[in-house]
Amino acid sequence: MGMDATAVVAELADKARLAARTLIAATNKDRTEVLNRIAEELQSSEIEILAANSEDMARAKEEAMAESMQDRLLLTSSRISDMAAGAIQVSKLESPLGKTLRENTLPNGLHLKQISVPFGVVGMVYEARPNVTVDAAIILLMSGNAALLRGSSSAAKSNEVLVKVMRRALAKTDISPDVIQLVPSDDRSSVTALLHARGKVDLVIPRGSAALIRTVVDGSTVPTIETGAGVCHVYIDVEADLEKALPILLNSKTHRPSVCNAAETLLVHEAVAAKFLPIALAALRDAKVKLNVDEEVAKIAGANQITVNLASEANWSTEYNSLEINVAIVPNLLAASDHIAKYGTKHTEAIVTQSQENAAKFIALSDCAAVMVNTSTRFTDGEQMGFGAEIGISNQKLHARGPMGLEQMTTTTWIVTGSGQIRA
Amino acid sequence: MGMDATAVVAELADKARLAARTLIAATNKDRTEVLNRIAEELQSSEIEILAANSEDMARAKEEAMAESMQDRLLLTSSRISDMAAGAIQVSKLESPLGKTLRENTLPNGLHLKQISVPFGVVGMVYEARPNVTVDAAIILLMSGNAALLRGSSSAAKSNEVLVKVMRRALAKTDISPDVIQLVPSDDRSSVTALLHARGKVDLVIPRGSAALIRTVVDGSTVPTIETGAGVCHVYIDVEADLEKALPILLNSKTHRPSVCNAAETLLVHEAVAAKFLPIALAALRDAKVKLNVDEEVAKIAGANQITVNLASEANWSTEYNSLEINVAIVPNLLAASDHIAKYGTKHTEAIVTQSQENAAKFIALSDCAAVMVNTSTRFTDGEQMGFGAEIGISNQKLHARGPMGLEQMTTTTWIVTGSGQIRA
Repeated sequence: MGMDATAVVAELADKARLAARTLIAATNKDRTEVLNRIAEELQSSEIEILAANSEDMARAKEEAMAESMQDRLLLTSSRISDMAAGAIQVSKLESPLGKTLRENTLPNGLHLKQISVPFGVVGMVYEARPNVTVDAAIILLMSGNAALLRGSSSAAKSNEVLVKVMRRALAKTDISPDVIQLVPSDDRSSVTALLHARGKVDLVIPRGSAALIRTVVDGSTVPTIETGAGVCHVYIDVEADLEKALPILLNSKTHRPSVCNAAETLLVHEAVAAKFLPIALAALRDAKVKLNVDEEVAKIAGANQITVNLASEANWSTEYNSLEINVAIVPNLLAASDHIAKYGTKHTEAIVTQSQENAAKFIALSDCAAVMVNTSTRFTDGEQMGFGAEIGISNQKLHARGPMGLEQMTTTTWIVTGSGQIRA
Repeated sequence: MGMDATAVVAELADKARLAARTLIAATNKDRTEVLNRIAEELQSSEIEILAANSEDMARAKEEAMAESMQDRLLLTSSRISDMAAGAIQVSKLESPLGKTLRENTLPNGLHLKQISVPFGVVGMVYEARPNVTVDAAIILLMSGNAALLRGSSSAAKSNEVLVKVMRRALAKTDISPDVIQLVPSDDRSSVTALLHARGKVDLVIPRGSAALIRTVVDGSTVPTIETGAGVCHVYIDVEADLEKALPILLNSKTHRPSVCNAAETLLVHEAVAAKFLPIALAALRDAKVKLNVDEEVAKIAGANQITVNLASEANWSTEYNSLEINVAIVPNLLAASDHIAKYGTKHTEAIVTQSQENAAKFIALSDCAAVMVNTSTRFTDGEQMGFGAEIGISNQKLHARGPMGLEQMTTTTWIVTGSGQIRA
């Protein structure tokens, strides 16, 4: 791509914006139809998609890509079906467009109405998961937005064919295929160009590693939504039901450790530590979780023949994304909140307590996207929370906070209707 | 300030965040009380405030500051009363905090509740209008946020005393005076530090010239809200009631030309141009508005002995902030919309038409914060729209669009309450 990346991205964005007019002019039924067509086309293009993906996979193996990355890159017949099923599921959701969010008439007779409208042209920057190409496109189309998709070069062949398949489906409808644009991934200049296409691109959403998210958020003049680095905590209160606490802890840490809503640190009130920790540490060890602990916890572990490491200062703020956890004893709820304020990332914090008063205190002291009371941190998730689909989890306070579904992919406009009113 | 600006801003932000806890822990009655105290203290400190302001004014005159800037810098007895009245008015508004925005119970028994919460620490970067120091502080306090205020060095003495007066009022309440912090304005390094205080500052809002806004939005790693450059248009449709059109046009352009919701361009449907333009151009001329017009308009002006200039390409995208307007004839509504899409800033666009169908078309084709149908562009304003107060007008699509009042100064959090649910 090189020198002309800015021109290339500008051209793609201009095409996308023009095409987006067909998407806005369409009815919700039309948009639903598009998603169904995409689902069909994905299913009927399985051979073509798998062939392209096997090219990416061959290159990944040649370049000795990490196994976990290879797993993310891999497409299979069942993963293609999942993408198609996702399109159908999203097509059945209520349209987020044209909703009246507020309406009133002023004393001077002016009628005010605030309605939901699409952003326009939305860029996605993501890593080697080709399913994001389809998942993001369908959420953006259903919410009336054109999509500029910039995936990883390691998934280039897969992404190319997936976009080709989706555009083929669009060609069978009244909506212009140009609403989906693949941004070349030959080199980094296209990312830079996308992040500086101010006025051409309305919003960029990064999805991937913390490093990718930082690059996008810090390097952009286009508005961005920071998504999810999660150093999430589970705090076991003095008033906790310890029988509930153990499965909540294990689920939060081990259910899917690689994602942002997994827990990284366990905080235990000192009054229940002697009772809870021997059981909890043993259960974590049995689940193959590496334990980084403070000195008090180390004593309890030692007395119970459980191997641990003393946590370094850096451990407390590390998002492991793997089977590794920090454990500390805190004197009270306030100390737990102070620890979270110091080391957390304002994503999801959980408290296990039977005391409504303590839960309320913990909620008031927390400054995060979601607080879990007596449940797993893993529930901070668009599908789990009933959004039907999720394009990412916002870990910032602007615009959307927490899981983002169709509704979060809209903005608003005011319509003020009068009969000649002027300002005095 | 110099080298240690980062440390200075970090310290102010830390103090503000700690103090913000007293603001969140307070009741709405407490916050109301604080604003009333501020109003009282402003009134009783008039002599002190005027003395400080006269120092700034003396320096402004020495440095030959532009008259219009001097007018903005000047504080008078009546302007101090206005600030105090503003505090009382905001104190009477409904609290935007703790509102339940969504609530439901999932099939697995989890109870979901989304509530409004403050951002936390909000920075304001603004120019030589000392009243912004008070206006911004009261909106931020009422919405539960701590305020980091970075005004212009030319208003340094005024801002210092205004912050001192407000902090004195806070000292008489249970809320920590540290919720209001003045960021030193000796040199630009404090702005840079504020814009990079990621994690310390939750949001920065610029208020002022287009250049200031660009500096803040482009140079920031802290989330920002872009406020209002406005190249607003008034389109006179073929179906317009021309008697309504003239006052709407004049009000949009001349009521207060220095602000962002003033009109910069008049677009007239060709079928009504011969009838409307002779009257409209004469009225604009009589109101001392400089006319930059296209060739067709120039012919009509010439035939009516009205002096005009031929508009350059640059004119169409210029925000004059003064008594100057562009005028063009367009063949139809679509051409008007195309012109707006090309030269507009997505702020406010007005259509004058008796046709509901044409109004609907214009609304659908517009991509802006507010569309005015048969009314003046000057109504894109928080007070006029019944928000009670305004901290600025968002000219971006993220978070808030259009006027921002108390509600727009909040974010949300999810509270998920269970009885031990885990993800399967």
